[in-house]
Amino acid sequence: MAKTAPSSSRGPDRRAAAAEGLWTRKDLVGLDELSAREIVHILDTAESFKEVSTRSIKKVPALRGKVVALLFFEDSTRTRMSFELAASRLSADVLLFSAKGSSVAKGETTLDTARNIEAMGVDIFDIRHDQSGAPHMLASKLKASVVNAGDGQHEHPTQALLDIFTIRQRLGRVEGLKVAIVGDIAHSRVARSNILGLRKLGAEVIVVGPPTLVPSAIRAMGCEISHSLDDVLGQVDVINMLRIQFERFSSNLFPSVREYSRLYGMDSARLARCKKDVLIMHPGPINRGVEVTSDVADGPNSCILQQVTNGLAIRMAVLYLVSQGRE
Amino acid sequence: MAKTAPSSSRGPDRRAAAAEGLWTRKDLVGLDELSAREIVHILDTAESFKEVSTRSIKKVPALRGKVVALLFFEDSTRTRMSFELAASRLSADVLLFSAKGSSVAKGETTLDTARNIEAMGVDIFDIRHDQSGAPHMLASKLKASVVNAGDGQHEHPTQALLDIFTIRQRLGRVEGLKVAIVGDIAHSRVARSNILGLRKLGAEVIVVGPPTLVPSAIRAMGCEISHSLDDVLGQVDVINMLRIQFERFSSNLFPSVREYSRLYGMDSARLARCKKDVLIMHPGPINRGVEVTSDVADGPNSCILQQVTNGLAIRMAVLYLVSQGRE
Amino acid sequence: MAKTAPSSSRGPDRRAAAAEGLWTRKDLVGLDELSAREIVHILDTAESFKEVSTRSIKKVPALRGKVVALLFFEDSTRTRMSFELAASRLSADVLLFSAKGSSVAKGETTLDTARNIEAMGVDIFDIRHDQSGAPHMLASKLKASVVNAGDGQHEHPTQALLDIFTIRQRLGRVEGLKVAIVGDIAHSRVARSNILGLRKLGAEVIVVGPPTLVPSAIRAMGCEISHSLDDVLGQVDVINMLRIQFERFSSNLFPSVREYSRLYGMDSARLARCKKDVLIMHPGPINRGVEVTSDVADGPNSCILQQVTNGLAIRMAVLYLVSQGRE
Repeated sequence: MAKTAPSSSRGPDRRAAAAEGLWTRKDLVGLDELSAREIVHILDTAESFKEVSTRSIKKVPALRGKVVALLFFEDSTRTRMSFELAASRLSADVLLFSAKGSSVAKGETTLDTARNIEAMGVDIFDIRHDQSGAPHMLASKLKASVVNAGDGQHEHPTQALLDIFTIRQRLGRVEGLKVAIVGDIAHSRVARSNILGLRKLGAEVIVVGPPTLVPSAIRAMGCEISHSLDDVLGQVDVINMLRIQFERFSSNLFPSVREYSRLYGMDSARLARCKKDVLIMHPGPINRGVEVTSDVADGPNSCILQQVTNGLAIRMAVLYLVSQGRE
Repeated sequence: MAKTAPSSSRGPDRRAAAAEGLWTRKDLVGLDELSAREIVHILDTAESFKEVSTRSIKKVPALRGKVVALLFFEDSTRTRMSFELAASRLSADVLLFSAKGSSVAKGETTLDTARNIEAMGVDIFDIRHDQSGAPHMLASKLKASVVNAGDGQHEHPTQALLDIFTIRQRLGRVEGLKVAIVGDIAHSRVARSNILGLRKLGAEVIVVGPPTLVPSAIRAMGCEISHSLDDVLGQVDVINMLRIQFERFSSNLFPSVREYSRLYGMDSARLARCKKDVLIMHPGPINRGVEVTSDVADGPNSCILQQVTNGLAIRMAVLYLVSQGRE
Repeated sequence: MAKTAPSSSRGPDRRAAAAEGLWTRKDLVGLDELSAREIVHILDTAESFKEVSTRSIKKVPALRGKVVALLFFEDSTRTRMSFELAASRLSADVLLFSAKGSSVAKGETTLDTARNIEAMGVDIFDIRHDQSGAPHMLASKLKASVVNAGDGQHEHPTQALLDIFTIRQRLGRVEGLKVAIVGDIAHSRVARSNILGLRKLGAEVIVVGPPTLVPSAIRAMGCEISHSLDDVLGQVDVINMLRIQFERFSSNLFPSVREYSRLYGMDSARLARCKKDVLIMHPGPINRGVEVTSDVADGPNSCILQQVTNGLAIRMAVLYLVSQGRE
């Protein structure tokens, strides 16, 4: 098992390690493909890039003259901004492609769109797509690097990496921790990638939600299932509240918002029954008063904004590593 | 009273003055908060940045490695482009957030949106918001600098600053001038900010428009009121024509476009009855033949395009000053 | 007649030639205005810039501190990205203006919009407009350079230049070749610009399509007309398949998609009857199975992706030349 303690080494030495064979992939399509050692190497690389964001001039020339194209076939302001800023901070040129009003509307295939943009001289694609597997397909067809920025209900590896990075930063380790993931597990790529990454690093995962949203098949990924948040509060070190998708309430999958919040929302009463240092996470944007009340979201156990900050470091690390892996 | 004559000093000396305590604010939320001395300091700083735009390489490294986020909760192509270019010219990285298709649509609060983007490492926010007071609220909650790029019917300080800068440039002073502001005073943040700034610098302001659009309460801001443009033509040094919002014609606030134009539009006949050097201003985009006829808009008394050019210098100065004020 | 053989000279020497009077125009509005010598000079300049895109750091400082504004009054993701990347590669600052949600919607004229943006300090405009002639009008009114990125049914000069560049690259010359352009000739600016450029460089052009889409007046441009693709297959060196606009099928101009594809689509059977080295081109995005089948589009005779790659070099050359021509 790879070490999970936060690395204290920083900067060029650590980065140079990439060239020494700890990372050889040209793509990051999911955590499913990665070994624990590779995941830890991304976290360690992010550790060294985290320091860049604290400088007065928040830039390094690592990807100068390279082109990073953001291919967003699905809207996501926040993830797009985080990748855009990560690329800028590495001095790359950034090209934004959003599916709206584009040739996609003209009936072009995803592969043709990507190949055309690649032909302009793109080095790395960050791809958000509503179809599961689209980044994998593109990674196998393109010479450019492909980073999965969320595909359908499949994976969202950089989100899981930033979550795990934040856990390691706050609690000092990942191995041996017990992490609850709460909400719509069935449709969540964030849940899937977190389960994959946490299990590989030796954490226990318990998924929590109403039976309609927690398929029993998820046990095959190595997690426990609970339908009661109250039952698990005292046992866990981390509670990751998934964002609820309001559009699903119109289906029969969800009870009412009020009912959901009463059963699965995090508030100060529930927090009082948790371990003292329990970490409250949320991938954002939060629905205040639904998944989590404001006092908890803004309180000392929450690391919600830290997750966002760490997202930059993780994405810088991933862009840097796939760029090295391609050479 | 601060000096209002155009500064002849330029460049680093002037800029260095910021560090000497002439500017200590981390934000620019409105002209209401500023002293005459602070307003003049912005104008003087803009004077020094104006020169940058005339260089062959129109860039200075003042904000290199800093991140300027444009948060536009309301569309505005022109103001957005002006801020974007000002930030680029200072070598900052620019991040664009537009409310459409974003997490705002997912029910997130303005404060949560801004805090999340701030967590990515943003140094300065330029905020356009449909709600009056939003930039003030954000300025008090964020560590990053906040520049108000127009909030509801409240203030649009950089527009007023560029207007006043242009007046000073063309007429050599602001103090003692008489400025007419014509149009929908009641709903105009441009009018409000201009009145505040002009009064502080010792100009007289007369607001002109139909009674439905000129609230008598505006007298409390220290201006005269007139409902007849013809009555004031001969007395004023500057006429600032506000853009009319066509959507208001469907309400009962406006007469017909033709009636409005006949009573409050600027044409060559009216221009002939003005002082010889009267300055004709408009914040743009103009409705040709409505607020102003083409011969006047494109004639020698107009400074409409100069206003746009000066907007760059003002926004460079403001970005630079708030960045210094934050440190 | 100017030489049409590929230039072997590269880099600064070639670029310096611009200053020696081979190029004196501040604008590129169409191929109609250009001499053969000027067209060849653009191709030769592109040759020298093509090398930049193969470097590890794909950037040159040629336009550092200059501002390139992309004014897209009509959507075009691909052309926009190509111009954007070309400008970035020359180290220019890029400003994007898209007609949606902008002051255009507020009733401002195209000229006022452009003049306002120019007043912000823009050096070069890349303009895409739905009205034929808009770039010409703007070129005559603005001090900034204007590059036509496609205007109505009139011209799309950079597309034709990249097509001709690709022909020269693949077949070693342009003069004396026979080029078929297939599809909706009547409404295509790509066809018009290609015909103009190819004729000037001494190629023969035959336009092919159903009578409703091939006006006989096109003969005045110096091309032959054929209504049968099968009739011309054996005679031509290049076949440029235009993209069909599906929206025209609802009119009476087009037969059904199936009928069109059967008569004017390129497939392996037709390819077998062509010259061995025939070059198959398409401006993209392609409708696979309509204008061209996948085996042909992805086969050795196709240069579709090479066209995209060459587009960067052509646009870098054009931006560079008009910038020199302005001085």
